[in-house]
Amino acid sequence: MANALILLAAGQGTRMNSDLPKVLHQIGNAPLFAHALASGAALDPVRTVLVVGHGGDRVAAEAAKIDEGIVVARQEEQLGTAHAVLQARETLGDFEGDVFVLYGDTPFISGETVLRMAEARRTADVVVLGFDAADPARYGRLVTEGDRLTRIVEYKDASPAERAITLCNSGLVAADAGVLFDLLEQVGNDNAAGEYYLPDIVDIAWKTGRSATAVSCDEAETLGVNTRAELARAEAIFQTAKRAEALETGVTLTAPETVFFSLDTYVGRDAVVEPHVVFGPGVTVESEAHIRAFSHLEGCHVSMGATVGPFARLRPGAELANNAHVGNFVEVKNAQIGEGTKVNHLTYIGDAEIGDGTNVGAGTITCNYDGVFKHRTVVGRNAFIGSNTMLVAPVTVGDEAMTASGSVITSDVEAGALAIGRARQVNKPMLAVRMFEKLKSLKAKKQKGQ
Amino acid sequence: MANALILLAAGQGTRMNSDLPKVLHQIGNAPLFAHALASGAALDPVRTVLVVGHGGDRVAAEAAKIDEGIVVARQEEQLGTAHAVLQARETLGDFEGDVFVLYGDTPFISGETVLRMAEARRTADVVVLGFDAADPARYGRLVTEGDRLTRIVEYKDASPAERAITLCNSGLVAADAGVLFDLLEQVGNDNAAGEYYLPDIVDIAWKTGRSATAVSCDEAETLGVNTRAELARAEAIFQTAKRAEALETGVTLTAPETVFFSLDTYVGRDAVVEPHVVFGPGVTVESEAHIRAFSHLEGCHVSMGATVGPFARLRPGAELANNAHVGNFVEVKNAQIGEGTKVNHLTYIGDAEIGDGTNVGAGTITCNYDGVFKHRTVVGRNAFIGSNTMLVAPVTVGDEAMTASGSVITSDVEAGALAIGRARQVNKPMLAVRMFEKLKSLKAKKQKGQ
Amino acid sequence: MANALILLAAGQGTRMNSDLPKVLHQIGNAPLFAHALASGAALDPVRTVLVVGHGGDRVAAEAAKIDEGIVVARQEEQLGTAHAVLQARETLGDFEGDVFVLYGDTPFISGETVLRMAEARRTADVVVLGFDAADPARYGRLVTEGDRLTRIVEYKDASPAERAITLCNSGLVAADAGVLFDLLEQVGNDNAAGEYYLPDIVDIAWKTGRSATAVSCDEAETLGVNTRAELARAEAIFQTAKRAEALETGVTLTAPETVFFSLDTYVGRDAVVEPHVVFGPGVTVESEAHIRAFSHLEGCHVSMGATVGPFARLRPGAELANNAHVGNFVEVKNAQIGEGTKVNHLTYIGDAEIGDGTNVGAGTITCNYDGVFKHRTVVGRNAFIGSNTMLVAPVTVGDEAMTASGSVITSDVEAGALAIGRARQVNKPMLAVRMFEKLKSLKAKKQKGQ
Repeated sequence: MANALILLAAGQGTRMNSDLPKVLHQIGNAPLFAHALASGAALDPVRTVLVVGHGGDRVAAEAAKIDEGIVVARQEEQLGTAHAVLQARETLGDFEGDVFVLYGDTPFISGETVLRMAEARRTADVVVLGFDAADPARYGRLVTEGDRLTRIVEYKDASPAERAITLCNSGLVAADAGVLFDLLEQVGNDNAAGEYYLPDIVDIAWKTGRSATAVSCDEAETLGVNTRAELARAEAIFQTAKRAEALETGVTLTAPETVFFSLDTYVGRDAVVEPHVVFGPGVTVESEAHIRAFSHLEGCHVSMGATVGPFARLRPGAELANNAHVGNFVEVKNAQIGEGTKVNHLTYIGDAEIGDGTNVGAGTITCNYDGVFKHRTVVGRNAFIGSNTMLVAPVTVGDEAMTASGSVITSDVEAGALAIGRARQVNKPMLAVRMFEKLKSLKAKKQKGQ
Repeated sequence: MANALILLAAGQGTRMNSDLPKVLHQIGNAPLFAHALASGAALDPVRTVLVVGHGGDRVAAEAAKIDEGIVVARQEEQLGTAHAVLQARETLGDFEGDVFVLYGDTPFISGETVLRMAEARRTADVVVLGFDAADPARYGRLVTEGDRLTRIVEYKDASPAERAITLCNSGLVAADAGVLFDLLEQVGNDNAAGEYYLPDIVDIAWKTGRSATAVSCDEAETLGVNTRAELARAEAIFQTAKRAEALETGVTLTAPETVFFSLDTYVGRDAVVEPHVVFGPGVTVESEAHIRAFSHLEGCHVSMGATVGPFARLRPGAELANNAHVGNFVEVKNAQIGEGTKVNHLTYIGDAEIGDGTNVGAGTITCNYDGVFKHRTVVGRNAFIGSNTMLVAPVTVGDEAMTASGSVITSDVEAGALAIGRARQVNKPMLAVRMFEKLKSLKAKKQKGQ
Repeated sequence: MANALILLAAGQGTRMNSDLPKVLHQIGNAPLFAHALASGAALDPVRTVLVVGHGGDRVAAEAAKIDEGIVVARQEEQLGTAHAVLQARETLGDFEGDVFVLYGDTPFISGETVLRMAEARRTADVVVLGFDAADPARYGRLVTEGDRLTRIVEYKDASPAERAITLCNSGLVAADAGVLFDLLEQVGNDNAAGEYYLPDIVDIAWKTGRSATAVSCDEAETLGVNTRAELARAEAIFQTAKRAEALETGVTLTAPETVFFSLDTYVGRDAVVEPHVVFGPGVTVESEAHIRAFSHLEGCHVSMGATVGPFARLRPGAELANNAHVGNFVEVKNAQIGEGTKVNHLTYIGDAEIGDGTNVGAGTITCNYDGVFKHRTVVGRNAFIGSNTMLVAPVTVGDEAMTASGSVITSDVEAGALAIGRARQVNKPMLAVRMFEKLKSLKAKKQKGQ
């Protein structure tokens, strides 16, 4: 049977104290709602509706970046969760099958949990996800009899016996699409806030001859994000999990607590990651690569046995072949670095292709930008780029060619050639001494003058 | 009524194992005593006396940097806290009003607490600050009857009933200046250590017809610093508080535990601070600025929407206008970077002014130092500084001017002009190959020779 | 009496999920077995046998780097700990004295503990190290009567009374060489795994008229490493201890939790280490040196009062004299930096010697590599190296000499001389404006064309 997701992402998130819509705040360099999408991915949904409200255009734009198939529904007024879900009705159109309601600010629901909700749908019309709360506080309680979820009761309406229940309402719901929207239509707003509440569908289900059941998950999965502090805490939880995952894979993390991963980071077995490393989005590191301390990687690929850092920055499009070395104070962007090639010090390689076995000297810069266009630099195999060479793109340096230290290379260099472009050195005896004497006497005069 | 502070800062701090006087060790890049001064600032004191002893000159010099109004009193011999306070008498001179005795090595007393002490002065002649100790151990106990502080008893002299008291003596005292010095004069040194103890004034107060009361604060506020380990712990407490404060303000801290603030750091709402960032003293970051990983900022101003790092260093006097970009391996010192201007890679900008909309190429260096003097570089708006340009100051590059990559600019460049100063490139066919062959055969010979 | 160590290091460490033999995984930048060797060093052993198996050649090679005196014995098949110890018999040859059996994956046994084992040997033939387990779980139990260790019982064979014992078997054993091998010969493999177990020697000892006793240590000392997660935990424990040690020495660590030490790091009193610093192997920092944030040091020496960083990298062979400054984005390798000399920005100094009082400008590079050989650069005292100077080694710059900014220095510069090697600047009025107009119109055409 087909599944669809409705992801509620309309809230303003006032307590975030931010102009950014709440679900666009990030964990692991991916917006909060992308984590909820990842939870729902276990269901292999045929449709996904994102219900947006505050900052809806920005949220829609981010969603399109992640998956063009996501359909956006607008909730113009915030009239409660039941109302929010109803906004997805039209966009779901003729969809037949089960609908799962998830929350854009609840990033840690596991795929296994939503699959258990799907499983429970076989035995009940409505499935609600609960969690056993260590401190149930003022959460709504799930009142059950055997497998039956008889009622969801708000804390303020609960009897002492009901308040003793520790199974609390996470808000996640699964139901057949037809049933869900039928129930939602019957939800009223006769309450203090004048809002339409999604949990009310349980009562209505039983009253209209349908059944409901509860599935329970770990409280940690239901963690929501409402403040910056909670966001930081959620990030920490995410990082702890990613670090543990890397250790399981057989990665050496000298100091896991100082290494930061993105949602999509992959690091291979027997890779070593030293302290103080940041992985931005889109990084793949193959096995036996060595990521040294103080390295920053984004959108790049590091092949087997390659070494990065310390103090290296790999930007999007950087691709290091096997055993390549990118060393300290080196930036690589949109460039292929060949097998065994060394770019060890104080260098900027952008929009370039460097062949295998080449040595790029300290202070080399690909001058890839003319103020309007970006141009490409190509360096061949086993070439030797002298220190402080400016490679003014577009330019090509052939295999086994060499550039002299301090040269500005504006024309192509054929294979095997030496290119040189620098002035001859002249020594002026005693001039340094005379210049310093002059400067110092000037200084002395100035100080006297004061 | 006027208030005065007496800050005791004479201790050697033997357990710090340091040549630096204890109160000069830092938390949040400010000396310990500066934190105590900040506590006292809530009283809006008209006079502040710093009682110094060990390393008194160095302490006095640091105090003058923070506030020229601070008066220093010398305690030549360390004869106890009562003796220390008495040293401030002369410098307080004709002061009339309340005196508050604080400690230079007790950095976390809140302004609210000292204000409560001031409030309590309305009902008693002497006010002593106590704290409820989780583990009272060997602290002196405050013996109270209702609102009356009847006695301060040392642990060793305390009865079992008194030892059961958990309200302990913090050492902070408030009293009318005249009363305080009158009481202090009556304190004796008839004890094992032969010292004059400040707590003795409570007994003397009651005996001379005055009253005393206690105010209580959280134990955490009274944390003292006696060892390097305690200093590190105090720093951690300080950082935790500053991080929480930033999150409250609406700053995104991806990994708060890796970000270090100074006492005076200000970061605005919706600014993002990535992992591994250090804020030295004197930094202001406006809202929506983005401080990327591995950035180090001191004495600088980052305006709205500007981006810093990763791997950027802003030194004192760096001022970034709105939407300026300072990127990796870039150092900026005493320089204004214009609106939307980009200084993205491997650059040193010192003693300079760069106009709006200018692009500064990789490897650019302002040569600001001639060995004796520092000189200034001025670059106009919408200019284009080619990669690896040396700007030999004093020098000016006009609006919309350009420098060619690899040029050493020693004379001014007028607006709209292109300045070029580099040798022409020459290619020598096959020379690279021949040179390598020669070097390799030399190497082979050497290896044979061994 | 002479002592010998047998270090068991043959295990594959399957749960490490690694191609690297388990004992080669590192803590504090030293392989696990090196830590066990350090424990045994307290005994001043005359012989040390490393019993290797999986990856034996790699383990042997690493051992030779640490101490050429270590003898390697091979355990071809993994037939149990008793069998492993027996493999050392031949290599111990005619050794007479006490043998201590340690484990290559148990890095935290203190020297004091092994000395207590040696002391206990005076009263018993066999000494076994136990630890009081907070949660004894399935560890083997040490059954004692007074000072006598009567039996080591495996958990599965233990009676309820024996399971109540909390003194557990660490596996460490000390015995006279002759006695030990005699006992080992009698150990059988009549058990489920068909292995020869070292603990069986206790039973055999009593049966053959020898005595056994137990020595107890803190459970933390017996921590073993079996997974990457345990390795990370062990690293954290190691770092915590090193940080505490530094604080005790009188080092200021602003944020100890962000500073990483190696086993052999030494930092002197009143040195300051800012947040985010990594000490690789072989670093000595003298007192009052200042290691600023984001610094990375390996194999180097930093003298009194010198300043390093932020963002500095000192590589092996870097030696900073008193009050030298190495600043941001600077790499120093195999080079002496003179007293008070400043290398403040964006520089690579490799294979060089820089005299006292010299100023090295931003962007300076020692071009030490010609593609085959490395050459040396020598700069004298009180010299001034202009920004972006290329020092093409081998080359010498004399005392008080100066190089002009942007010069490529290929020939020696005599003392007091000014060396200059750069093209003259030419300004081409309005050319920048015309070039940009052309580029922009080209861009406009392209965009139209699309």
